[in-house]
Amino acid sequence: MYRTVTCGELRIADVNKEVVLAGWVQRIRKMGGMTFIDLRDRYGITQLAFEQGNESQTALFEQAGKLGREYVVQATGVVKERYSKNDQLSTGDIEIEVTKLVVLNPAIVPPFTIEDETDGGDDIRMKYRYLDLRRSVVRRNLELRHRMAFEVRSYLDKHGFLEVETPVLVNSTPEGARDFVVPSRMNPGQFYALPQSPQTLKQLLMVSGFDRYFQIVKCFRDEDLRADRQPEFTQIDCEMSFVEQEDILQMFEGMTRHLFKTIKGINLPALPRMSWHDAMKYYGSDKPDTRFDMRFVELMDVLKGYGFSVFDNAAYIGGICAKGAAVYTRKQIDQLTDFVRRPQIGAKGLVYARIEADGTVRSSVDKFYTQDQLAALKNAMSAEPGDLILILSGDDADKTRKQLSELRLEMGSQLGLRDKNKYSCLWVVDFPMYEWSDEEQRLMAMHHPFTSPKPEDIPLLDTDPAKVRANAYDMVINGVEVGGGSIRIHDAKLQEKVFEILGFTPEQAQTKFGFLMNAFKYGAPPHGGLAYGLDRFVSLFAGLDSIRDCIAFPKNNQGRDVMLGAPGVIDQVQLDELQLKVEKKN
Amino acid sequence: MYRTVTCGELRIADVNKEVVLAGWVQRIRKMGGMTFIDLRDRYGITQLAFEQGNESQTALFEQAGKLGREYVVQATGVVKERYSKNDQLSTGDIEIEVTKLVVLNPAIVPPFTIEDETDGGDDIRMKYRYLDLRRSVVRRNLELRHRMAFEVRSYLDKHGFLEVETPVLVNSTPEGARDFVVPSRMNPGQFYALPQSPQTLKQLLMVSGFDRYFQIVKCFRDEDLRADRQPEFTQIDCEMSFVEQEDILQMFEGMTRHLFKTIKGINLPALPRMSWHDAMKYYGSDKPDTRFDMRFVELMDVLKGYGFSVFDNAAYIGGICAKGAAVYTRKQIDQLTDFVRRPQIGAKGLVYARIEADGTVRSSVDKFYTQDQLAALKNAMSAEPGDLILILSGDDADKTRKQLSELRLEMGSQLGLRDKNKYSCLWVVDFPMYEWSDEEQRLMAMHHPFTSPKPEDIPLLDTDPAKVRANAYDMVINGVEVGGGSIRIHDAKLQEKVFEILGFTPEQAQTKFGFLMNAFKYGAPPHGGLAYGLDRFVSLFAGLDSIRDCIAFPKNNQGRDVMLGAPGVIDQVQLDELQLKVEKKN
Repeated sequence: MYRTVTCGELRIADVNKEVVLAGWVQRIRKMGGMTFIDLRDRYGITQLAFEQGNESQTALFEQAGKLGREYVVQATGVVKERYSKNDQLSTGDIEIEVTKLVVLNPAIVPPFTIEDETDGGDDIRMKYRYLDLRRSVVRRNLELRHRMAFEVRSYLDKHGFLEVETPVLVNSTPEGARDFVVPSRMNPGQFYALPQSPQTLKQLLMVSGFDRYFQIVKCFRDEDLRADRQPEFTQIDCEMSFVEQEDILQMFEGMTRHLFKTIKGINLPALPRMSWHDAMKYYGSDKPDTRFDMRFVELMDVLKGYGFSVFDNAAYIGGICAKGAAVYTRKQIDQLTDFVRRPQIGAKGLVYARIEADGTVRSSVDKFYTQDQLAALKNAMSAEPGDLILILSGDDADKTRKQLSELRLEMGSQLGLRDKNKYSCLWVVDFPMYEWSDEEQRLMAMHHPFTSPKPEDIPLLDTDPAKVRANAYDMVINGVEVGGGSIRIHDAKLQEKVFEILGFTPEQAQTKFGFLMNAFKYGAPPHGGLAYGLDRFVSLFAGLDSIRDCIAFPKNNQGRDVMLGAPGVIDQVQLDELQLKVEKKN
Repeated sequence: MYRTVTCGELRIADVNKEVVLAGWVQRIRKMGGMTFIDLRDRYGITQLAFEQGNESQTALFEQAGKLGREYVVQATGVVKERYSKNDQLSTGDIEIEVTKLVVLNPAIVPPFTIEDETDGGDDIRMKYRYLDLRRSVVRRNLELRHRMAFEVRSYLDKHGFLEVETPVLVNSTPEGARDFVVPSRMNPGQFYALPQSPQTLKQLLMVSGFDRYFQIVKCFRDEDLRADRQPEFTQIDCEMSFVEQEDILQMFEGMTRHLFKTIKGINLPALPRMSWHDAMKYYGSDKPDTRFDMRFVELMDVLKGYGFSVFDNAAYIGGICAKGAAVYTRKQIDQLTDFVRRPQIGAKGLVYARIEADGTVRSSVDKFYTQDQLAALKNAMSAEPGDLILILSGDDADKTRKQLSELRLEMGSQLGLRDKNKYSCLWVVDFPMYEWSDEEQRLMAMHHPFTSPKPEDIPLLDTDPAKVRANAYDMVINGVEVGGGSIRIHDAKLQEKVFEILGFTPEQAQTKFGFLMNAFKYGAPPHGGLAYGLDRFVSLFAGLDSIRDCIAFPKNNQGRDVMLGAPGVIDQVQLDELQLKVEKKN
């Protein structure tokens, strides 16, 4: 061992001990006849002190003076109490009077500073990710990730779950995102696919009687990378047998509570449940941020029919009440109008109404409404003096609700209601089985085709499948869907019918999912489960804006690892062995 | 929840409790007016009893009679003490007097019996792996695997290791086995590779100051599958900074001890260490099975030069002493001769010598040697009356030792010295840095090109690289290499020199490993590590002959998952998106 202690552990009680430390030179300060070096490792920073004294000390002093940032050194010395202590550092009471210094490895000057606030831009930090990871703000995210994964395993192990590894080289499946494929050299012309999730395999494990399965597992999707998507991501994937929805909600509410307790020291209250229908109605989103209220109020009865043609022609009029925001200036409100008009949001305009101190209402549509009518609006919105009512309308209720949802989130941010250190968790339940796809001109599975309909809605499969609700649920924290799942179909016939509604011919269903439907015939237990996105879960706990910062070696928006230079070209020999030819299009 | 208890937990103390169970019908026994059903789940088997009694009971009795093997049922009833108890079953004292029976899912007849000793062959069991996994002998291997992985994580977490996920989509590297590649749709003509191990990435994490890293991680090799290889396999991958070889041996000897203690209840003694040179000399193998002794004795001085031309012309003559095997018949010895002559082993013949009860030696080469000369042989072999000496010779010492190693293992098996419940662990250390490749006509890295030479051997790199020993080590248990690793090079210049000896031009080295050598220039700490093969480790603990049985969904020797039908053909659309064309050769 190159050290007897780490850079994070020495305290005042260790004074006069002889120690050996090893680490990186974080900072060098020269002050007259003294040189101080901050020595850094994963565990902390310890100050090394060198004094220009007698002859032997001078040699050491000069040696220290020649070190550079990020040199790797080993220092032997004696722990001393500091003259001027540093409250900010756990080792701030002591320093090391160095008696021997060994340079283990010199370092050239790093391309950006290794500090919490670095001067390096995104691109250079990704290229030198191994240096970026030296920054404690980045490293702490990965320490948190380790801790969360460890606590997840502890909880699930204690509850009888077995972690079973499922294969990475599987078969390509339709219905879902695009697969990454892997050519098989031993089976030329054939391809493996990388799993988008172990969904069907974990269901087979239930058929096998594994009863309680989990896996923290890499999954893959070859999608065009929008913000905050990665081609490979990690799921906490879980499945249970002989359970109903309630059992799963309880079990994983317990897991979430365990994580909040052990990692954050927070005693999470029981999670409220909200139907998908209510989430859409009151928040315009299936993942409402419930850290703040500001629910939608539908205003069709209140505002329609008074001659304001925009509202009179609307299929939906909805408002939110921003408490205390009546102080917003005209300019601020114009900016909000610009915000909702952005193409990503797409609203045509924004109507507002301020509640004055005397209770009167002043709105942007005053000329169409009497004060009585506006008082009715105030009443409907439960608005009080000092509040600002913001109203959107449109000819498509769903789209308008989505726009209003964006506005609500923006107002939440502006009013400081989205504190990263405050957590609001809930279950969203009773999702519809299907959603209509304009693009595909057919019903698509909202979760996935293995999701079970609610038993009481099964008759609707024949008459009005769009109305069928699923035994599906999402866990939402602070407006982020961290997990989701469903009770699965365990009956081969019901599974066939669901595939049929999704537009599969019996032959297609058999080709693609025959192994699963066949397995169901050999005695499948009732089962269900869910999966959490570990990257998102960690980001949320770390208070990060992007999942990238809780991934050791993430890829950029072109799917590239710029540090490794991956992907890259491969040898012709390799292509020949795979019997493949690249046919580039221009 | 479909049950109040599992099929493994009811005991005599539970008598008269009303319970609900759910599981699979394992067996149905009809005995006159009684029907007994063994209900199975992951946790055990509980007997359900149905009596043909009054009218209401009759209906239930008839219902039970109609069940088939592997039906999934839910049974409500009362726990009763059994008339005839079953010692073999933890629930054997009780049975359930069923009051209500619900068929949750019927089952068609499985293609093989779901019993420890099944009638299903390998192929059918792989095709219906989800049924094979119902067999408790298979399931227990996966339970063991979960437990071992969990205990590995506990131990490493307690020792400050962080589990860091490294990417699966990386770059293709030379030196090593063939990579699986993944075409990149977003970067046409370019490919990711799946990692053969996270070797370079974990070294970068050391450069980042992560200090102690581990990961239980899937690795991939596109090799022609010999017996007991899988294209994807799992490693326990570990790396530490500021360590010397001794620190790593201590840490991972501790981990192995922890596993033996927690999983097997065995207190492992301190692991002996054997140099690679001694392992080759005394066992003809770098992974000696030390459950039994039977060391090689070199017999060149003893048997050469007496007119037996086979020995007189040999570069190596070596013998093993099989204790008590003088009783071997002529036929048994002929079988041993056939064994060593098999093409896989390739010896020309086998010489034997029996030590008779009176101490005289009778050998197959009596006519060339006097009894005095044979007595010298007996002496050299420390043989006693009743022992059998077996001797191989050849003109290539290394090849002959390998043949003798096979013979030694065979004799160990025949003499019952390789008990699967007995464990003998050791470290093999001081591996050579390089081995000569006849095929490539150059030196190859014996471990991998990042392995550090022993500091005292560094001068030999320039003069006699084949003599350089590495700071490399393997953990061997019962003749199986379960883990191995090395101290790594952390100096960019030394790394360059090693690449040079391996035949890389500076440009090739820079193209392939530039990111690593570059990283070393920014301050790399001394570091080293090792990796265990989890599949092998579990197999060893489970007493399995093949790693396949501790993998949930293994692939066959053609790299196929016959259950999923992977690999398979993919749509032309997918190929077009990847700008690839399959060019099949005939």
